[in-house]
Formats: sequence, C-alpha cells, structure tokens
Amino acid sequence: MNKLQDLGKLVKEASYELAKKTTQEKNDALQFIANALRENSAFIMEENQKDIINGKEKGFHESLLDRLLLSKERIYDIADALEQLINLNDPIGDEMEAWDRPNGLEIKKVRVPIGVVGMIYEARPNVTVDAASLCLKTGNAVLLRGSSSAIHSNKALVSIIHQGLEKSKLPKNAVQLIEDTSRDTANEMFQLNEYLDVLIPRGGHKLIQTVVEKASIPVLETGAGNCHLFIDETAEEDMAVKVAINAKTQRPSVCNAIETVLVHESWDERYFKHLLEALESNNVEVRADESIRNSYPQLKEASEEDWETEFLDKIIAIKKVSSVEEAISHINRYGTKHSESILTNNEMNRVKFMNEVDAAAVYHNASTRFTDGFEFGFGAEIGISTQKLHARGPMGLEALTSTKYLLFGEGQIK
Amino acid sequence: MNKLQDLGKLVKEASYELAKKTTQEKNDALQFIANALRENSAFIMEENQKDIINGKEKGFHESLLDRLLLSKERIYDIADALEQLINLNDPIGDEMEAWDRPNGLEIKKVRVPIGVVGMIYEARPNVTVDAASLCLKTGNAVLLRGSSSAIHSNKALVSIIHQGLEKSKLPKNAVQLIEDTSRDTANEMFQLNEYLDVLIPRGGHKLIQTVVEKASIPVLETGAGNCHLFIDETAEEDMAVKVAINAKTQRPSVCNAIETVLVHESWDERYFKHLLEALESNNVEVRADESIRNSYPQLKEASEEDWETEFLDKIIAIKKVSSVEEAISHINRYGTKHSESILTNNEMNRVKFMNEVDAAAVYHNASTRFTDGFEFGFGAEIGISTQKLHARGPMGLEALTSTKYLLFGEGQIK
Repeated sequence: MNKLQDLGKLVKEASYELAKKTTQEKNDALQFIANALRENSAFIMEENQKDIINGKEKGFHESLLDRLLLSKERIYDIADALEQLINLNDPIGDEMEAWDRPNGLEIKKVRVPIGVVGMIYEARPNVTVDAASLCLKTGNAVLLRGSSSAIHSNKALVSIIHQGLEKSKLPKNAVQLIEDTSRDTANEMFQLNEYLDVLIPRGGHKLIQTVVEKASIPVLETGAGNCHLFIDETAEEDMAVKVAINAKTQRPSVCNAIETVLVHESWDERYFKHLLEALESNNVEVRADESIRNSYPQLKEASEEDWETEFLDKIIAIKKVSSVEEAISHINRYGTKHSESILTNNEMNRVKFMNEVDAAAVYHNASTRFTDGFEFGFGAEIGISTQKLHARGPMGLEALTSTKYLLFGEGQIK
Repeated sequence: MNKLQDLGKLVKEASYELAKKTTQEKNDALQFIANALRENSAFIMEENQKDIINGKEKGFHESLLDRLLLSKERIYDIADALEQLINLNDPIGDEMEAWDRPNGLEIKKVRVPIGVVGMIYEARPNVTVDAASLCLKTGNAVLLRGSSSAIHSNKALVSIIHQGLEKSKLPKNAVQLIEDTSRDTANEMFQLNEYLDVLIPRGGHKLIQTVVEKASIPVLETGAGNCHLFIDETAEEDMAVKVAINAKTQRPSVCNAIETVLVHESWDERYFKHLLEALESNNVEVRADESIRNSYPQLKEASEEDWETEFLDKIIAIKKVSSVEEAISHINRYGTKHSESILTNNEMNRVKFMNEVDAAAVYHNASTRFTDGFEFGFGAEIGISTQKLHARGPMGLEALTSTKYLLFGEGQIK
C-alpha cells in the first residue's frame, strides 16, 4: 500500500463513523470550525502569503493572484458561510418513500450519505473549506486535492478544520488533504474506486475533461455553459434589451452568462437596432451572421467556431432564425445543456421551446443568470451539473446524498 | 466520421424526436412491436438457430446455449412482457417539485428522458427487446451492443422492432444495433460522449468492470452481490433456517442470493446444529471459520478469499461473530453493498444494523431474495445498481429518466 491508498483507507473508515453522527453533532462541528477559522485568521493569512509570493515569482496573472488571496475579510466570509450552512435542513435520514408489498414486506427509501467524496479543484483556497463543510453537513468524508499553487493555504486551512473537528464529536480523519500535488497522485486518485464513491471536479473545462476521461470512479460533472437567449417574434423590446444586457454583462466570466443571442427574423427591426446599440454602449463585441451583416456591415463576422464558444467575456454571437424550431435545433446542436431562455408572448412557442430544448434549466422571460444554488433557494451549492445522471442543474445538499432501501419483514422468503 | 459515429448521430437525432412523443404514442409502438414479435416468431427462431449452431460448433456449455435459445414460448413471453410495460405509469413529464422565489420566478422540476442509452450486454438475446422497450417507454433512444455469439438473433429482433416502429409514430432510428461486435467498436462506444448520455452494462463482473474502467460516458453500474445473512443472538430458529435456506438455495446463481452467514456466538448451539443439518440436506457445501470447525471438524475451512467470493453456487461461508458490531464491520469490509439481512428480535441491534450496514437494501427478518424491481413493485427492472449515484438498488423506469428545471419569469434580471 502506498501513501494515497493509506489516506483513502483512513477517510473511508472515518466515513462510517461520520455517517452515524446526528445533525446536532455535525452542526456543532461546523460551528467549531467557523470559530477556529476566525481565531486563526492571522496564521492562515501568513501561510497564504507564501502562495502569493510563489505565484508572483511564477508571474501569475493579477486575476489568478486575486483568486488565491485570503484576506481577513475573506476568511471571515468563509466562516460566515459555514454558519449559514448550520441553519440549512440536514437531508440525511429523510424518509423519501414508504410502501407495503402484498407479501407483507414494508419498504422504506431513506437518504444516506454517499460515503467518501473526492474533490479536485483549482487555485481557489476557499473551495477547501466550502467543500469540506458541505460534505460534513451531509455526513460525507472528503479527500481534497487542490492546486499546487495554493498548497500552503490549503494545508493551513485543513489544519484549522482539524482543530475544529477535534473539539467536536466528528472524526478528524473525515477531512483529508492530498499534500503531494503531482500529476501522479491525481491519476492515482482517479482510480481509487475502493475508497472513493464519487469525484467532483471544480474548475475550468480542461480539468473537468481530464477527470471525466480518466476517472473510473463516478464523476459529478459540472460543466461549461454555452448558454443562449432566443428573442422570439413577439418578444417585448424593453425586456429583450434588459435581459440580453443582464445575461451577457452582469458577470461575463460565469457559466450561466449567455454567449449567443438568436433573434426571430420577424422581430421588429427597430427593436433589433436598439438591441445592437445597447450591446455596443455596454462595450460588448458583437459577432453576427451573414444575414445581419447585410444590414450592419460594420459588425464582425461570426465564425462556425463562435457558435460553439463559451467566450466568458464581453463578446456575443448573434444569429437570426426563421422559427422557434430553428432556434431549438441550433441550441441542441451547439449548447452545453446548461441554461437557455426564450423571450416570447406566444404560448405555443414557449411550450415548444421549454419542452424541446435539452438543458438543465430552461427559462421563459427571464435572464439565464439565475441558474445557481442560492438563486434557486437551496442555500448552498456544490456546483452546477451539466450531465443527466444523479443531479442536473444547480446542486444543493441533496446532490451529496444517496439512498438506501430498508425492508421490514416477519420471516418472508421467496 | 466512421460508422459508429454515424450510428450515434442517427440515434441522437432520433432521441429528440422520440422525446416529444406522448405516452399513447409510445404505448402504441410497444403494442406494434409485441404483435410483430409474435407474427414473426418463425423468422426469429430461424435466425436464432444460426447462433445456436455456431455456439455448438464453438463448444458452448449447455447453460450458455440455453441462454441463447429463443423458443416460440420465449418469444411470446417477451411479447407479453412488452404488453405489461404498456400498463405501467409513464414517468416522463411528471412534475416533481414546484416553488416560487422572492423575485417572482416560478421554478418547476420535471422528469425528462435521459436521451440516448448505450446498452452493452452478453449472450441473452431477450435483453435486446427488454432494453429497447424500457428505453422506448421512457422516451430514450438506445444504441445496443450485444454479444457476437447472439448476433443473428439480435439482428433479427431489431429488424422486427423496426417493423413495429414503422407502424407507430415513433422514429425507427430510436433503436439501433451495433452489428460489428469487435472489441474496437466496444472501446469506441465507451468514448462516444457526444452522442450517448449513459452506458448500462448487463452481464458478468468482468464485462461490468471493463465498462467502468474504460468508459468516459457515465455508467449505471449493476454489480455483483456478495450478500450476507446475520443471525443474531435472539433470532428465531425456524425463521433462521427457513431464510438461510431460501436465500442460499432458491436460486443460487443470482446476485441477491446470500454467500455468507454470520452467526452470533451466543445463538443457541442446537439451533446452529440444525442450520448446518438443513444446509447439508439441501446439498449446500459449508465453508466454516476456525471456531466453528473446532466443534464441527468435518466442515471445510473457509479461506480469506471465501469471505470475498460471490459463489453463485450451492456453497456458503459461515462465521461466528461476537456482536452486531463485528457483523456490520465484516459486511462493510467484504460485502458489495447489494443486499444484507439481519434476523433478530433485539430492537437496538436491528436499528444499528439497518443504519450502519452500507448497502442498497438492508433487511430485517426477511430473505435477501426480494431485491428485484418486480418484488419491489416497480413492474419493470433495468438492473440492480450497486453504486451510490443516480439510482441505488433495483432500478425501475424512473432510473431511465433525468430532470429539467423550468423557470417562468416576467423579465427578471439579476
């Protein structure tokens, strides 16, 4: 047995202890961890500075350094988030269904923890506490693998989590960090089926693709968002401009921002002109299809690649379509099954679009920016699933649970 | 693009058409297929004979030839099963949850088809119709890959399914068979993420392991069953003997049969003797631990490997344990998280066992043989999931569905 397997075994054993703990015991542990984070903020910032200095030496971009940074305020925010988690309902133990069989067997379906969650993520050290606390709340042990660029911060945070756990009734080993961040340990982690029940990658497209391709452990895929807004013939001008600008510019770097606008060719041309003007005045680069460029030759041309691209920037592709069917077919071809919206006053087109578009969240007359565990009212978010198994769309605490059938008999045999 | 990708694209396109169909249209198609199977039973048997002759030439075991065989009676049974499926509730379109947000957004969670199911299975040709019909009922298209030894039967069955589909309003391309059964097409199928939403392997341990290890598409793992019966100190003699014999011998070759009996060391020694006698008179080979062999030296010794083995035969391993905790710990170490049972009149031990044993189905005072979609009352079964994501335990029609969020707004922006 090598080191990673030892660690896996340790976490697996802790998961069985953890699964027995009450909601109160789990909430107490979250409070102890929140307290320990606040009390040790100076130590955490000190260790974080080592990562920041290394990052500067390696020439990291400002935005990356900012994601790495743990200020006192940010540490207190992390502690606050832990306390908010305490107030959320604990899904573990919920009886989901119960029924009797003709032979007298009584069957109950109850919620249980998944077991051990493997979390693989990039430079944001806040994910360390976020992931650990969501797992603890749902009775799951967690094996964390962060980025080498945040290793000092992650080690510090996990040592503080351990301080909190030691004061609680939860097993300290339920949260473990892989300190060796080499590619070898990642590849080994992908195959640790004996000890890990699920892998959750959090980060960019490349990280997620690597995990999906290489892991034999089931993966909860949280993916890219190539999201669309379809402005139908009957869409109101004000709403269309307001929603398009919001969905594109309110935070262009996130997965639920839109990348392409599809406009019905019969939508009022004056409205369309106003939409283009609004985008321009919001500094959005427009890439348009040929039919639009016939009337607006100053616009950049949209390439085939643009329809497939998640720009994550103030760039938008625009295409005119002749029908709701063409819009649906474009979205099902180029979309990433994340969030899609139709603006229309035509009930038939609304129903058709909402039924036939293949995506986790389909909107009528609203911005796609609401696809988010907090906006959905879950109070927490593990990520946004773009796959179709287990969980689809924003994942709250329930996505970190499994189920178990309990069968009560009186000696029944088959 | 090669052939398999063409086929994948075809099925994917058909899946969007299929997803729009009503319950009535899907049920009509199932009836047309059932009729076509009965009408063409002679043709199917003729094609099936080619596989049987090939199998005999290759020296297949009698039991394998029997699994391959399609008699008129079996074809009619398959058609009957299709008609039973018609009567089951169609889960697609069910509204699972609905709620409003403070900003006025209305959110609904509805059941939708998964999309395209990839089914990989071994010699039983009945799986071809079974898998196709379960998929059609739930609005999923399916790409089938059976065994080369059943290729004539599978081609015949799919041609008959197509005959049925052509009479219906469902797209014929929604059911496709990979006719090239080489290893290359299997490996390629494992990576067909663009067109397949899930892979379901049905067959032996080796097939399932290969799919789990090699596939980048999410897999619904249906696994082996190393199931246990724990006879606690207070277990009733009659019930213990009856349940042990049933769970071991009623059908030893299936996954929900037991492989190991754990007996509390304080259980009445006379009862234990009767249990051994009952196993012997049912021709079950007993492999016992050392403490038991001290009293019954004639018994075979259980090796470490025996605790891990799914015998699928009239062989049973028996071990004495000193407590419910030891039983739980043995099961969580050696079990495959399938079906586990405790026989006890001690309420505390019952609760402890049912809570702490990590398995899809945990029984009190009953045989493990009820872990089955039909015994659970689902009316159909895709398989029995031993993983913890998406579905755990017997999988009925709902396991072939995903969900989608529909959001209704009035121009909301973030």
